[in-house]
Amino acid sequence: MANEGDNIRVGKSKASMDFATLIGLISGFGLIIAAIILGGDPTSFINPPSILIVIGGTLAITSMCFSVSDMSRSLKIIAKTFFYSSRDPSDAAIQVLQIAELARRQGVLSLQNVLDSIKAEPFLHKGMLMVVDGTPGEEVEAIMRRDLNATMQRHHKGANILRKAAEFAPAMGLIGTLIGLVQMLGNLDNPATIGPAMAVALLTTFYGAVLANMVFSPMASKLERNSTEEAMVNTVYMMGAASIGRQENPRRLVGQLNSILPPA
Amino acid sequence: MANEGDNIRVGKSKASMDFATLIGLISGFGLIIAAIILGGDPTSFINPPSILIVIGGTLAITSMCFSVSDMSRSLKIIAKTFFYSSRDPSDAAIQVLQIAELARRQGVLSLQNVLDSIKAEPFLHKGMLMVVDGTPGEEVEAIMRRDLNATMQRHHKGANILRKAAEFAPAMGLIGTLIGLVQMLGNLDNPATIGPAMAVALLTTFYGAVLANMVFSPMASKLERNSTEEAMVNTVYMMGAASIGRQENPRRLVGQLNSILPPA
Amino acid sequence: MANEGDNIRVGKSKASMDFATLIGLISGFGLIIAAIILGGDPTSFINPPSILIVIGGTLAITSMCFSVSDMSRSLKIIAKTFFYSSRDPSDAAIQVLQIAELARRQGVLSLQNVLDSIKAEPFLHKGMLMVVDGTPGEEVEAIMRRDLNATMQRHHKGANILRKAAEFAPAMGLIGTLIGLVQMLGNLDNPATIGPAMAVALLTTFYGAVLANMVFSPMASKLERNSTEEAMVNTVYMMGAASIGRQENPRRLVGQLNSILPPA
Amino acid sequence: MANEGDNIRVGKSKASMDFATLIGLISGFGLIIAAIILGGDPTSFINPPSILIVIGGTLAITSMCFSVSDMSRSLKIIAKTFFYSSRDPSDAAIQVLQIAELARRQGVLSLQNVLDSIKAEPFLHKGMLMVVDGTPGEEVEAIMRRDLNATMQRHHKGANILRKAAEFAPAMGLIGTLIGLVQMLGNLDNPATIGPAMAVALLTTFYGAVLANMVFSPMASKLERNSTEEAMVNTVYMMGAASIGRQENPRRLVGQLNSILPPA
Amino acid sequence: MANEGDNIRVGKSKASMDFATLIGLISGFGLIIAAIILGGDPTSFINPPSILIVIGGTLAITSMCFSVSDMSRSLKIIAKTFFYSSRDPSDAAIQVLQIAELARRQGVLSLQNVLDSIKAEPFLHKGMLMVVDGTPGEEVEAIMRRDLNATMQRHHKGANILRKAAEFAPAMGLIGTLIGLVQMLGNLDNPATIGPAMAVALLTTFYGAVLANMVFSPMASKLERNSTEEAMVNTVYMMGAASIGRQENPRRLVGQLNSILPPA
Repeated sequence: MANEGDNIRVGKSKASMDFATLIGLISGFGLIIAAIILGGDPTSFINPPSILIVIGGTLAITSMCFSVSDMSRSLKIIAKTFFYSSRDPSDAAIQVLQIAELARRQGVLSLQNVLDSIKAEPFLHKGMLMVVDGTPGEEVEAIMRRDLNATMQRHHKGANILRKAAEFAPAMGLIGTLIGLVQMLGNLDNPATIGPAMAVALLTTFYGAVLANMVFSPMASKLERNSTEEAMVNTVYMMGAASIGRQENPRRLVGQLNSILPPA
Repeated sequence: MANEGDNIRVGKSKASMDFATLIGLISGFGLIIAAIILGGDPTSFINPPSILIVIGGTLAITSMCFSVSDMSRSLKIIAKTFFYSSRDPSDAAIQVLQIAELARRQGVLSLQNVLDSIKAEPFLHKGMLMVVDGTPGEEVEAIMRRDLNATMQRHHKGANILRKAAEFAPAMGLIGTLIGLVQMLGNLDNPATIGPAMAVALLTTFYGAVLANMVFSPMASKLERNSTEEAMVNTVYMMGAASIGRQENPRRLVGQLNSILPPA
Repeated sequence: MANEGDNIRVGKSKASMDFATLIGLISGFGLIIAAIILGGDPTSFINPPSILIVIGGTLAITSMCFSVSDMSRSLKIIAKTFFYSSRDPSDAAIQVLQIAELARRQGVLSLQNVLDSIKAEPFLHKGMLMVVDGTPGEEVEAIMRRDLNATMQRHHKGANILRKAAEFAPAMGLIGTLIGLVQMLGNLDNPATIGPAMAVALLTTFYGAVLANMVFSPMASKLERNSTEEAMVNTVYMMGAASIGRQENPRRLVGQLNSILPPA
Repeated sequence: MANEGDNIRVGKSKASMDFATLIGLISGFGLIIAAIILGGDPTSFINPPSILIVIGGTLAITSMCFSVSDMSRSLKIIAKTFFYSSRDPSDAAIQVLQIAELARRQGVLSLQNVLDSIKAEPFLHKGMLMVVDGTPGEEVEAIMRRDLNATMQRHHKGANILRKAAEFAPAMGLIGTLIGLVQMLGNLDNPATIGPAMAVALLTTFYGAVLANMVFSPMASKLERNSTEEAMVNTVYMMGAASIGRQENPRRLVGQLNSILPPA
Repeated sequence: MANEGDNIRVGKSKASMDFATLIGLISGFGLIIAAIILGGDPTSFINPPSILIVIGGTLAITSMCFSVSDMSRSLKIIAKTFFYSSRDPSDAAIQVLQIAELARRQGVLSLQNVLDSIKAEPFLHKGMLMVVDGTPGEEVEAIMRRDLNATMQRHHKGANILRKAAEFAPAMGLIGTLIGLVQMLGNLDNPATIGPAMAVALLTTFYGAVLANMVFSPMASKLERNSTEEAMVNTVYMMGAASIGRQENPRRLVGQLNSILPPA
């Protein structure tokens, strides 16, 4: 019995690194850096005060819009959801059905043997623990649905923070450029300095555009996309745990899962 | 009997090439290219690093927003839906009614002879196959509706990717122009190079504007339009297959189709 | 009897020319042309290649977003709805009530005499024809409502096409200006040509702004406004025809019309 | 009895001048004019052709979007709602309750004595007139609600016209500036004229920005705000008249009004 | 008994200073000021007429959109909600449950001893006062819900005013810059003054960008965020007071609060 339970393994259930994010980030910045190096002296693109104004200013304004705890909590969520992508919902459905089949054949208590193998999926693990403890199906579903909604809300807040940052970064870039322009125009005595001064003034606009379009905005989109996918997988887990908790026939679970999953 | 079934031919049911798309694309780019050639040396408009920054950068950022599999799957959908337009919903309705009439007169099994002639319309073919196999009408409708929704969602995702690309292309153009401006302004020693350097800097803005407004944005609109039309045609097929599966009188099907189709 | 029916005349029911549109169009362009002529040589504002890029390019991209048949069908709708405004809904209500009164006093068949006098209003004419033919009120209403919705959808599509064109025209203007700027900057040898070259480059931006803001955008707004008004008038016709078809007392029709018409 | 009715006076029910609007308008323009005069010659900011293009063009395009009757009718509504603000909803509620109390104690006919004192509030006056005439409460409510909705729709249309004008004014400013720039660039022979010509070209942009941001856009916001407040006051009147017409106990009316009014 | 009531203390229920707001505001402006001082003469960034145009003009236009009383009332709300953040909803729930437990054990009248200790939370205090006075639970809930909605509406109006100001500040900056440019271009005689005059002209754009992006826009976001949180806490108080007023078992209250609070 224990052996059989062990057989139901999560097919490498650990959330895998999200390579699209990394590849996009690296190739995007690679192109920009290549263009800068090919064009001559790359040091003219590094100006610490400008970097400070744009990055520091964006962080300052964005944190004004939220609370300190919002910001720190969301940073963790952003990092986690951003770099790791969820499992395929169909794989999750197959696994859940295997567990449901086992529960029907050998009783709910036999699931105790499976608990270890699904530790990599905390949401499924938590649900199954409640089922093994004899929590009724309705309550399992209610608790898991509340968790699911709270997670979605946290992701939503994280995406909101990123969207705000993507909105403020170009504004800070514009403010920095205006400061540079006013300073330059006030001292037109030496025409030789006009070019370099203007170049420095434009740098904050450049930083703001890069930050908003190549970092914050795609991160917000990715976070929303991964959140939707995670919600789909967790809904599969919730339906499975609730169905096992209600001791339903796995055939009913198949129908329920089919109604929410896209056809193969 | 087989002969009669053969008579019900799909009026050239193969999805036809969408010429509006091609004509628009060719004439739009033709105008741009003509303006460039008439204005003098066209080679000044070709700058490989600029092209790389805008196209490569847009692809990199867009793929950051989605996953690698999202991108590759959507490219196929975009190509398919973009270049081929659906049949007219009224034609589809007439064909479905002919099949329903045949089924009523000669029994559902006689539809086996029609199956071959509708292979060009996979969605209709799949539905009729289920009907011939004796699947009840309700189930045929449920399965086909799920397929329909999944297709719509895939189209929607494809249009989203194109919209994101249309949003990022001008941003990459701006970033490229800022890089060029900063490099130019840092080296104002030789006034003779100002003009050409500025021309090169503006090229990325030009590429970004062309990509966004003449490629990505119209493609997204077209994809959405074709998706709506395909959904209409497939809804007609679904209603027809379900009605035949329920062995209803074709007259009821006429009423149902009339309620969703625009008047002639 | 025939005489009485003739008395119920549609108060010049022919849709009248919409002068606001014409006056606005003419006075707007008049101001622009006056400003151009007062400023000196008007020929500097006419540049065939620039006109071709903006108008041709806008048409090309817009038609890419739709199908060829969408475009040609919508052009007719745009022309028709744009230049002619509907009758006043209150006038339409009074006319419908007169017809209903006649039908109650002299029977539905007496309406045959009115049919000719309402030919200028095809939607009312079609409804009355069905009533005279003895079509039951419910069916008259269903058919007319379907026609009404289809007309609204066609208008909506026409307005969408105009909105898209208003979106693409400035984009094509920007692209044209960028082409001109790149060409000018590449040949800075002769300073005397900078001014005129730049003037030509700016022309496409000018054309794009004029097309979008003085043609496409107001036309889309006008089309939507006229569509709403036509829908109101046609709803009055539909309610009237249905009520007569159901042989209701005209007093009930008064109440129904009052509930949708604004107070005098 | 007449005396008592007279006691129920509308606390200066005449709609009062809206000073916020006037103060804002005057101080905003005062600042602009002060800045212009302090900067030197104010006549350089007055250019009749530019004023004509921006104001005339904006009117022309805006009237293209609507009909002539829409425009003239809305102008009156704009003026009326813009300059006069409604009474406080709580004051209106107190007055309505006093009238209801009077009606309960001395009968509905005694309200005849109050009619004169509420003439300044036409909507309340109209409702009370119907009540005194013995119109049943349900009908009073239906008629008043229809009037209320029609007024709201008229206000909404007025705000829409202002929003459109705020959208077109900067566009006309841009078009005017482009005309000026093209004319200036075509005649670069005399460098001394570049500055003044460019100044004139920028004037239309200036006029457009002032018109849109300091006139049309705040007027639209104010119109919407005043419309909401007027609707609240008129809803109080409607509820009161309907309740008196239904001969309900004023205590019920207190509860109804409490549910829609904000707490003190 | 009094002692026990005293034990139920609000865990430092006084609304605490919102440090994220202050830190963001100070560090954001600190960066800007540092950049200005590092770049040379900071006095060139202070121009009283420009400050007057942007700040005065924004206030003038914004107050045109609202009424004088709207503005003064909202300023207080903005200050209060902006600088002080609400308590944690979970803390509020624990406190409410303690009070409910006390009421169940010792009767509703014993809550009189708690009233003093919750004076720092006026909304909870008001609710408990009604409960102690014997107001039925349904009425307590109705009154508190009305208060809650009115508070939300006031916050919403405050956020609206800030959003409008964030919209008008850059517009006033642009208008100021246009005035400066027109004045400068009209007097190009002395090239030495071009630079400084242009610098002054750009200052209003700078002020407008700073005001909109670093003051009004983040304040509006923060106000909305704090309003949502305060509504959550006050909903907890309302549910608690209503439940105690209905003399329900505190266990039911636990379930109700769980359904609206996020999991720990």
